[in-house]
Amino acid sequence: MKHQTAAMLVIGNEVLSGRTREANAWLAAQKLFERGCKLAEIAIVPDVDSAIVATLNRLREQFDAVITSGGIGPTHDDITMESIARAFGVDLIEHKFIVQAMTEYFGNEGLNDGRRRMTRVPATASLIRCEKTIAPGVRIGNVYVLAGVPDIFASQLDSILDDFGTVPYQRREIEVALPESLFAAGLTEIQQQYTDVEIGSYPGRCGPDPCGKICLSSQNPEALQQATDDVRAMLKGFQHR
Amino acid sequence: MKHQTAAMLVIGNEVLSGRTREANAWLAAQKLFERGCKLAEIAIVPDVDSAIVATLNRLREQFDAVITSGGIGPTHDDITMESIARAFGVDLIEHKFIVQAMTEYFGNEGLNDGRRRMTRVPATASLIRCEKTIAPGVRIGNVYVLAGVPDIFASQLDSILDDFGTVPYQRREIEVALPESLFAAGLTEIQQQYTDVEIGSYPGRCGPDPCGKICLSSQNPEALQQATDDVRAMLKGFQHR
Repeated sequence: MKHQTAAMLVIGNEVLSGRTREANAWLAAQKLFERGCKLAEIAIVPDVDSAIVATLNRLREQFDAVITSGGIGPTHDDITMESIARAFGVDLIEHKFIVQAMTEYFGNEGLNDGRRRMTRVPATASLIRCEKTIAPGVRIGNVYVLAGVPDIFASQLDSILDDFGTVPYQRREIEVALPESLFAAGLTEIQQQYTDVEIGSYPGRCGPDPCGKICLSSQNPEALQQATDDVRAMLKGFQHR
Repeated sequence: MKHQTAAMLVIGNEVLSGRTREANAWLAAQKLFERGCKLAEIAIVPDVDSAIVATLNRLREQFDAVITSGGIGPTHDDITMESIARAFGVDLIEHKFIVQAMTEYFGNEGLNDGRRRMTRVPATASLIRCEKTIAPGVRIGNVYVLAGVPDIFASQLDSILDDFGTVPYQRREIEVALPESLFAAGLTEIQQQYTDVEIGSYPGRCGPDPCGKICLSSQNPEALQQATDDVRAMLKGFQHR
């Protein structure tokens, strides 16, 4: 059965210190929306074992699936595989297929300590391979452990997306040059009529001529179209005053 | 006493659906780093009361302070103030100063239901004003409730930053055109020598000529300089081989 809800767990000091702008959860959010899987939470935690273990265990209990990004490289700050093994209470093992692939690629001498580190995955995990790297991601239970480097993450994500969602979400946006407070009551009424349409209102820059957007999304195309028409009609009432 | 650790709680379906790329936590991460406050977690949750309440209560217990962004406007999806009041177990009240300011600005007739919504804040909260908007953010306990619109968030954030951090973090970056696995062991040794320096290694695009960065950060400038020198010396050993 495909996952209908998911959480994204981003692991990396570089995001929390403001060095790197998060990009992988941003990509996953877009892809999961297209697939019709609800991304219910994004958590960004440091390269700290206790934080990874606690957050992962909370999220994998709470949602159908968890996608992690980051911390699976060869350096000391790459602790994701150990932490995930600990979260699941399983051993970290050298995976013979990864050892074999690395030996073929780098030769016996090239399989240094750093690369050997990348051959270790939680026991019971299955591999998620992609063409961009020899070191694979893994799947264990309902958790998908992917790389932090954006182009590798993107490639690995593509290869797992078939597990997520059934009915794609669609979105409509309406530009609106009115203050939100003016149409808030009308929008609330429409939201209450359409329980399977999610309506959000996002103001633009503040100023004398506010121009924001009303955003509608749904897995039900007909309801989406009707709700969009209703919002447009409601707004028209104000513009003609 | 200033906050030494903080978490950021971003509230908004628009980020989880991939409509909007998160910008406020990204800004806060940079500003807190400069101030010397450790941003220990970023959580992004939907406009859902139970998610906001549970996440806020976890984070405010776990860290010195929490900064929230989003959900304080006039529309039906803006539920942050109610949820925060519920998390603290206090009533939501019409704040007389906000009512007064809004009445002055919009006139009695302009104070419609939407705007009246924005006058309600958790009892016991104090106001965080900024020039960009009449509707203020609030502080309650160790929680700072700020707007989601990026320029308003930025302005409100600036006004509270003096509460955060004591000794600024500094950062050094070293470009490195070597595969991470080659210097991973050397980097681990240096990391072990400098307990107050955080060292991360971030590969660039994968390919035959990897060019990544080693990133060092610390609140101790001398240790930072020494560790940086040690890393450079360690890398030089490889480049001359």
